[in-house]
Amino acid sequence: MTSARTRGPVRIVGAGLLGASIGLALRDKSVEVILADASKATVRLAADYGAGRPAAEGDAPVLIVVAVPPEAVAEVVARELAAYPDALVTDVASVKSGILTELEHDRADLSRYVGSHPMAGRERGGAVSARADLFLGRPWVVAPHDGVVEARLHVIEDLALDVGARPVRMSAEQHDHGVALVSHVPQIVSSLLAARLVEAPEAEVGLAGQGLRDTTRIAGSNPELWVQILGANASAVAEILSAYRDDLDHVIHALRHPDRIGAPRTIAEALVAGNEGVTRIPGKHGQDRRYATLLVTIPDEPGELGRLLTEIGEEGVNMEDLRLEHSPGAQVGFAEIAVLPEAAHRLAAALEARGWSLSEPRAGS
Amino acid sequence: MTSARTRGPVRIVGAGLLGASIGLALRDKSVEVILADASKATVRLAADYGAGRPAAEGDAPVLIVVAVPPEAVAEVVARELAAYPDALVTDVASVKSGILTELEHDRADLSRYVGSHPMAGRERGGAVSARADLFLGRPWVVAPHDGVVEARLHVIEDLALDVGARPVRMSAEQHDHGVALVSHVPQIVSSLLAARLVEAPEAEVGLAGQGLRDTTRIAGSNPELWVQILGANASAVAEILSAYRDDLDHVIHALRHPDRIGAPRTIAEALVAGNEGVTRIPGKHGQDRRYATLLVTIPDEPGELGRLLTEIGEEGVNMEDLRLEHSPGAQVGFAEIAVLPEAAHRLAAALEARGWSLSEPRAGS
Repeated sequence: MTSARTRGPVRIVGAGLLGASIGLALRDKSVEVILADASKATVRLAADYGAGRPAAEGDAPVLIVVAVPPEAVAEVVARELAAYPDALVTDVASVKSGILTELEHDRADLSRYVGSHPMAGRERGGAVSARADLFLGRPWVVAPHDGVVEARLHVIEDLALDVGARPVRMSAEQHDHGVALVSHVPQIVSSLLAARLVEAPEAEVGLAGQGLRDTTRIAGSNPELWVQILGANASAVAEILSAYRDDLDHVIHALRHPDRIGAPRTIAEALVAGNEGVTRIPGKHGQDRRYATLLVTIPDEPGELGRLLTEIGEEGVNMEDLRLEHSPGAQVGFAEIAVLPEAAHRLAAALEARGWSLSEPRAGS
Repeated sequence: MTSARTRGPVRIVGAGLLGASIGLALRDKSVEVILADASKATVRLAADYGAGRPAAEGDAPVLIVVAVPPEAVAEVVARELAAYPDALVTDVASVKSGILTELEHDRADLSRYVGSHPMAGRERGGAVSARADLFLGRPWVVAPHDGVVEARLHVIEDLALDVGARPVRMSAEQHDHGVALVSHVPQIVSSLLAARLVEAPEAEVGLAGQGLRDTTRIAGSNPELWVQILGANASAVAEILSAYRDDLDHVIHALRHPDRIGAPRTIAEALVAGNEGVTRIPGKHGQDRRYATLLVTIPDEPGELGRLLTEIGEEGVNMEDLRLEHSPGAQVGFAEIAVLPEAAHRLAAALEARGWSLSEPRAGS
């Protein structure tokens, strides 16, 4: 444990996934964390997890993190600025320009406000999904504005560093365009793709493989949350989606008239541009760099998965994550097991010695 | 090793990823495999890997598997039918109707041809990527047509079973519509999304996370292969893409006019339809409506998860899916267990009696 840059107490308003995860990470560094939420049950749950202690009369936070649903952020930030006139307030909402505009309009004390956005999340929300390592290695955008001094930006950057994130400075406008590109547009593209499956015959959907699973994974996201996010960033999202739609129109036209000159080339260019775009994405593609993955074949019989996991326990290896791949009708399934890279080789050898069959992690169509 | 259903020799034409993988899987069951390829080096490589022996004068295959690039399939199938008048010929191309039409046009002996398609692949092609377990648990479509007798379909189904796949019967038309839906349309949707990144500022692309990586993973696929696949299935792909484009237009319109009545609802409906579509994908984790879900708290100690699953096995309940919620900073994790609804209540009671702590399943977000 290294010592914290952040000076507490830190008050976290909204003890959902992000709020509780920040709490867990700060508590790991012994920073005092105070939890507040509209729901007392949520505060109790997050406190049980070890994310901090419930708010009380007389609290004197020096830093406040607002982690409430998007539509409530500006109002809660304004309220916190007024209630704690000595505290610096930040928020972690995923769209930044609108909040700043609302706060300006409300004549809030912007010298004590810094907007920020950790680029981290999970498909599922709530304190139960919180984890101290949620922000590890992830960008945390800090968005300066005219009315705030440099030293206060440093406080938020220190918070980001304390939870393991990588602070990135970016204007609210550029941030909003960036998240439209890498997060909000992909959400719509994925949701609309998954929507095509709703009316499809069972037999056709049954042909699905990993390619479809990957492209539609985020289509499982929470609609209530996403209506708010997309509404808050509507114009940037619409602009990028329109360009996407124009490209799509060209491809559809080429597919409808495959014998016209240029049709195969139009399709090829779309595919090549896709190849090029993928190479621009930072990080090892499709995998969590922190862990190594073993793919173990399991007979589809009661107790076999339990036996596998018991034996992994007997080997003294801690499993970091587990994913099951199970094809209905097949005699076998796969367990994809994530472990620390340094344990992977030894565990693979031990499992094979125990008679398990291991494969390389597959990717595929 | 179980004995093979397939009677050899099996001649495989095209010793790339699919051909060599079929060869490896059949050799595992001691079926005689003969390898042919336009490239002698490829044949030698596949033979070195153990996928079979090089073709020779006087070979008398009873079954021929054509696994050449899509554009060459019909021609090679016709040639093999003519060269080996006693053999049954199948192919493994990913689009089926066009090949049948071409063969009819060429007056090939369709009584000895059965089209098929194993739904398996890897991002990397070639014999070097081949593996005997490539087809394990995957659907293998067998497409009957009017001119072929039942017994010959069984031969191809036996081949699928021998390599560990799950044979699925489907007409060429339904197959082609199905793969357009679950594979070809996702490919274009993903490529066009990744293409938006080509011109984007570095700082914005730097915000990318797992959501973008997943949605664009298949955009890294081989353009040469995909131009052929999409060209062969152009009309089915164009039809589904047009419906997708119409949905997209509605969302863009709603984003451009966010204050009009119905705009938020249009966006919400797209997101909800995406949620619904995702639940239809087989093997998709955590959100399958057919199953009831139990959420069990597990102490974060090696072996505890194994003990839980062993005890579920002891209760005689078959677990349909399992998802782990594991927070490295927290003292506990959760196992989300999907079981048939009729078993859920009994299992919950049994686990509580054994001292496990169960929570209300959370609403998916």
